[in-house]
Amino acid sequence: MKSNFIVIEGLEGAGKTTARDCVVRVLNQHGISDVVFTREPGGTPLAEKLRELVKQGIEGEQVTDKAELLMLYAARVQLVETVIKPALARGAWVIGDRHDLSSQAYQGGGRGLDNQLMASLRATVLGDFQPDLTLYLDVTPEIGLTRARARGALDRIEQESLQFFERTRQRYLELAADDARIRTIDATQSLEKVTLSLEQAVTRWLAEQSA
Amino acid sequence: MKSNFIVIEGLEGAGKTTARDCVVRVLNQHGISDVVFTREPGGTPLAEKLRELVKQGIEGEQVTDKAELLMLYAARVQLVETVIKPALARGAWVIGDRHDLSSQAYQGGGRGLDNQLMASLRATVLGDFQPDLTLYLDVTPEIGLTRARARGALDRIEQESLQFFERTRQRYLELAADDARIRTIDATQSLEKVTLSLEQAVTRWLAEQSA
Ligand SMILES: Nc1ncnc2c1ncn2[C@@H]1O[C@H](COP(=O)(O)OP(=O)(O)OP(=O)(O)O)[C@@H](O)[C@H]1O
Ligand SMILES: Nc1ncnc2c1ncn2[C@@H]1O[C@H](COP(=O)(O)OP(=O)(O)OP(=O)(O)O)[C@@H](O)[C@H]1O
Ligand SMILES: [Mg+2]
Ligand SMILES: [Mg+2]
Repeated sequence: MKSNFIVIEGLEGAGKTTARDCVVRVLNQHGISDVVFTREPGGTPLAEKLRELVKQGIEGEQVTDKAELLMLYAARVQLVETVIKPALARGAWVIGDRHDLSSQAYQGGGRGLDNQLMASLRATVLGDFQPDLTLYLDVTPEIGLTRARARGALDRIEQESLQFFERTRQRYLELAADDARIRTIDATQSLEKVTLSLEQAVTRWLAEQSA
Repeated sequence: MKSNFIVIEGLEGAGKTTARDCVVRVLNQHGISDVVFTREPGGTPLAEKLRELVKQGIEGEQVTDKAELLMLYAARVQLVETVIKPALARGAWVIGDRHDLSSQAYQGGGRGLDNQLMASLRATVLGDFQPDLTLYLDVTPEIGLTRARARGALDRIEQESLQFFERTRQRYLELAADDARIRTIDATQSLEKVTLSLEQAVTRWLAEQSA
């Protein structure tokens, strides 16, 4: 089976980082052991610097929506070209904690940036590169932010309004409904149930690939 | 007369920062005293952070051409939206030490990024915003780098090969030849002669505007 790029998506506190372990376990059970982890924004020293700028912002300066978008794409293209593509090329699998769908949902849905602009930027920067499978962990912003808050202080993005996250979630749901490569998981359930849903989704997808 | 955005362009050590004083003097002589200075990349705290990342890079990591391009545009759009446009809107003039033409010349010509990609990104990010006048200070890379070196240690970009700067200069010259809003100044001359050429170019341009 060819190596694949699997991405885990969802709002803050949806359970993405927790889900990673579950996905790796299923891959391992299927004999796939060479797995590279990435997170976005971030995943290379340069991209982590950009993550910090996006997440912390600058005291006293309003980060414009377009500057935020471009920093995220700068980080993404650096990660794709120097980490993800080389890993896939040597036969490793890659599991990404967020990828391009986050920009489509947060910057497109949440910030309200124009769809045309977003699509044009994506095509310009990434061409037709895209994940083979995206697992979208769907939670309400209330549940996600409660989980995230329990974990520590909220950053610049996490401090956005509930309405911002509602718009982001709506965009996630719309995009997932339109795309067979995105599987939606109900992540409002207990950890046990989410884990079960994830295992089933990944197992089924792997079966589809070898069919 | 409406307020205008005047940009000074050219290779490292061409004399851009030196030229600024001359341009301001001519504006002052014409009764224009509310002048805002910008430099690119940079000019806002966030954009200066991005400048640092672009100019210094990250120890041990190769900055990809596209990540570099996107960081430059992130810095640019932040500066345009939070400084340049507001200044012009309140009636101030703006003098920019570099602007978009630098990306066209360095990233397009020097790095060899695709023209189509560059044009699409520019349109996506800046729309039809552009300088009213650009003064392009033309020098050979040898002369420019000799002047820049005399000033201090060279950064990541300044350490590029002579061929890189030759390609950048060629692109500058091509773009200037195609655009009536760009005036080319022979900056290989003595400081006195360059100053005289600049004064004439700006004075003539101002006359054209009020004609
Ligand atoms: N289904 C669940 N039910 C209850 N708690 C959960 C569930 N999934 C994850 N958690 C807990 O919620 C917190 C956030 O989970 P996690 O860090 O995996 O989310 P995340 O999506 O990676 O968040 P972020 O976007 O902030 O990185 C953790 O403390 C985790 O143990
Ligand atoms: N025409 C000239 N002849 C000789 N020296 C010059 C001339 N113009 C500028 N210089 C000197 O060259 C050096 C570089 O000039 P300046 O800093 O203005 O260039 P710059 O284009 O702003 O460079 P950079 O792109 O690195 O900011 C300065 O020491 C300046 O005094
Ligand atoms: Mg996480
Ligand atoms: Mg200078």
